[in-house]
Amino acid sequence: MGIPLPRKDLFHLPDGVIYLDGNSLGALPRAAQARTAQVLQDEWGDLLIKAWNDAGWMALPQKIGDRIAPLIGAPAGSVAMGDTLSIKVYQALGAAVKMRPGRRVILSDSGNFPSDLYMAQGLIDLLGQGYELRTPAPEDAAQAITDEVAVVMLTQVDYRTGRMHDMAAITKRAHDAGAVMLWDLAHSAGAVPVDLTACGAEFAVGCTYKYLNGGPGAPAFIYARPDLIESVDPVLSGWLGHAAPFAMEPGYRPAMSTERLRVGTPSIVQFAILDSALDAWDGVDMADLRAASLTLSELFIQQVEARCPMLRLASPRDPDLRGSQVSFAFEHGYPAMRALIDRGVIGDFRAPDIMRFGFTPLYLDEADILAAADIIADVMTTQAWRAPKYQVRSAVT
Amino acid sequence: MGIPLPRKDLFHLPDGVIYLDGNSLGALPRAAQARTAQVLQDEWGDLLIKAWNDAGWMALPQKIGDRIAPLIGAPAGSVAMGDTLSIKVYQALGAAVKMRPGRRVILSDSGNFPSDLYMAQGLIDLLGQGYELRTPAPEDAAQAITDEVAVVMLTQVDYRTGRMHDMAAITKRAHDAGAVMLWDLAHSAGAVPVDLTACGAEFAVGCTYKYLNGGPGAPAFIYARPDLIESVDPVLSGWLGHAAPFAMEPGYRPAMSTERLRVGTPSIVQFAILDSALDAWDGVDMADLRAASLTLSELFIQQVEARCPMLRLASPRDPDLRGSQVSFAFEHGYPAMRALIDRGVIGDFRAPDIMRFGFTPLYLDEADILAAADIIADVMTTQAWRAPKYQVRSAVT
Repeated sequence: MGIPLPRKDLFHLPDGVIYLDGNSLGALPRAAQARTAQVLQDEWGDLLIKAWNDAGWMALPQKIGDRIAPLIGAPAGSVAMGDTLSIKVYQALGAAVKMRPGRRVILSDSGNFPSDLYMAQGLIDLLGQGYELRTPAPEDAAQAITDEVAVVMLTQVDYRTGRMHDMAAITKRAHDAGAVMLWDLAHSAGAVPVDLTACGAEFAVGCTYKYLNGGPGAPAFIYARPDLIESVDPVLSGWLGHAAPFAMEPGYRPAMSTERLRVGTPSIVQFAILDSALDAWDGVDMADLRAASLTLSELFIQQVEARCPMLRLASPRDPDLRGSQVSFAFEHGYPAMRALIDRGVIGDFRAPDIMRFGFTPLYLDEADILAAADIIADVMTTQAWRAPKYQVRSAVT
Repeated sequence: MGIPLPRKDLFHLPDGVIYLDGNSLGALPRAAQARTAQVLQDEWGDLLIKAWNDAGWMALPQKIGDRIAPLIGAPAGSVAMGDTLSIKVYQALGAAVKMRPGRRVILSDSGNFPSDLYMAQGLIDLLGQGYELRTPAPEDAAQAITDEVAVVMLTQVDYRTGRMHDMAAITKRAHDAGAVMLWDLAHSAGAVPVDLTACGAEFAVGCTYKYLNGGPGAPAFIYARPDLIESVDPVLSGWLGHAAPFAMEPGYRPAMSTERLRVGTPSIVQFAILDSALDAWDGVDMADLRAASLTLSELFIQQVEARCPMLRLASPRDPDLRGSQVSFAFEHGYPAMRALIDRGVIGDFRAPDIMRFGFTPLYLDEADILAAADIIADVMTTQAWRAPKYQVRSAVT
């Protein structure tokens, strides 16, 4: 057993808000403010360029990779940090296709996050040579793994429905077919237990601004299986992945570690915020977190279904097949979500008709769920969402 | 005439320090601290996910691109922001080679920043098909532009020597040979007047943590010539370059603007810091800035050469051929720079023997240069750098 959950005191949670969107942008860790002020004033301001050494900036990405590793079942030294998730998808995909030069299929599924598919499309356009992307329905992905497939790229937890792939079974199937396995853990890291070592996948990528609370635009992570670390092609071969970045050699020579998957200068302020956010994970047992997550999401489903018959559960009913979110389909999901947000229950909407609610056991408890259910029931039964002000679309929905 | 320089009051400059390394990491703008606190507490903390709309986060990269554009002679709407300079080099190079499908040569020079060369090497490895990178000496680059060349990629101001390429002449030569022109403005933006519109180059990239003072890991920029905006291939085709990111379409469909060169979720905290840093440029006339830069660097050369005969000028003597830095070669440059830093004169060292000093007219004046010259003369004539503590190498030099 780890430390008891939730740990609400570590987060800033505005009055009058029940935040069920930590699966999109995690809440502000209270420690971030002081840490950021320190980075700006004491480090950048006073040390200036010397801060790269004297304040530990150069070592920060590696330190943070080693803090994230245990949250995804990976050993120290196997996780590199930086860039965005889309960039890390490209890098892992490019490395993976080079490991299977005779194969031309990138297999994903139609439920994958669009940016993963877009990055694959861009890579294929650049490669030419007959590469293709296949996107069967999520439930058909495993069957679609054939010996034509160079790499299987799946997001473990579906961003729209919360449906969860079986990482171990699909990775085994990929390997049996001779394919490389790449997992996107965007909705997994900090949400569900992940055991990369046990599943044996070659690559994993993820972001840190959702359940890990690293803040808007926090750096992404990339995992490479330790036996590949000295052979994987970085594809995006930037100077901070070089064996000796400051030797300024004319030729690229990759670091003999996962650090070869770094590219350019790290976003130090965002890294420092993420570092302070990870303090909230010290001592958390992922099995406890999963149990708390399921308690919250089961209660939420039971409450909403009992009181809002117009909402149709769009997530798997079986909790073993679900991540840490629950989605309901509703024809008027967009204005309905806006009305909920107006009443302080913050979830989000994903086209075409999904109302998404995320459960973050670090800062949510059962009282929050019951209070949210009351408001949802009221908004739905009174059709408060029909007010004209909720019908107008905004840039981010 | 713009506003008078310097504007020291806008920056935090530590007591006892003369900072001649703004060409590596610009000084902290005083406004950044309050702006960062606001982004964390009022925006992320209180608005949570709503901040993407309500605090203008979604629009921030475009707004900042439009603030940088006039500093590099580019029109509004032609500069996209995000990622790191290395990533933007890759994106521009990839786009450029696709514009010249019959050609196989990427031409750069041996003085280019290594990461630019490394990214080109990674791209070439992925492309195969006989692509090659050529790196003649900087002074031979123009002559090396032949009709085999798909893209000419040069950094305007050499990071080591400060030697400056003639953008207009080389771009014309590239175009005469049918090649695409890509300029890296890392040591140009905010340092020397740049007129992208006049020179007609297809692409430019740069970073914002040097002369633009955006802070460690601040986002990079990429310019595409306006007539290309609707046809350029983004290569790294992430969701925020999509015409409708939140429509969650399965296929990539690029935005009909420079925004197609965006990739993933922007690092909002770093963007906000950069936004506050750009306030220091309001009303600055780049011709005034250049005049101030040359006054400072000419004075520096005159002072150092008169008093330190052991230092050999490694930058062009003709100010018209020099950016906003001055480099001296010295066999013991590494310990000598460490000794200078210990005495409060902060420059930096670049292998194998370059002592580099940058001139940032926003926060330096002639009194700073004279004071720095006194310390440099003392350290060099007393050989203070021979102390054992200065001989040990650190990670970043």
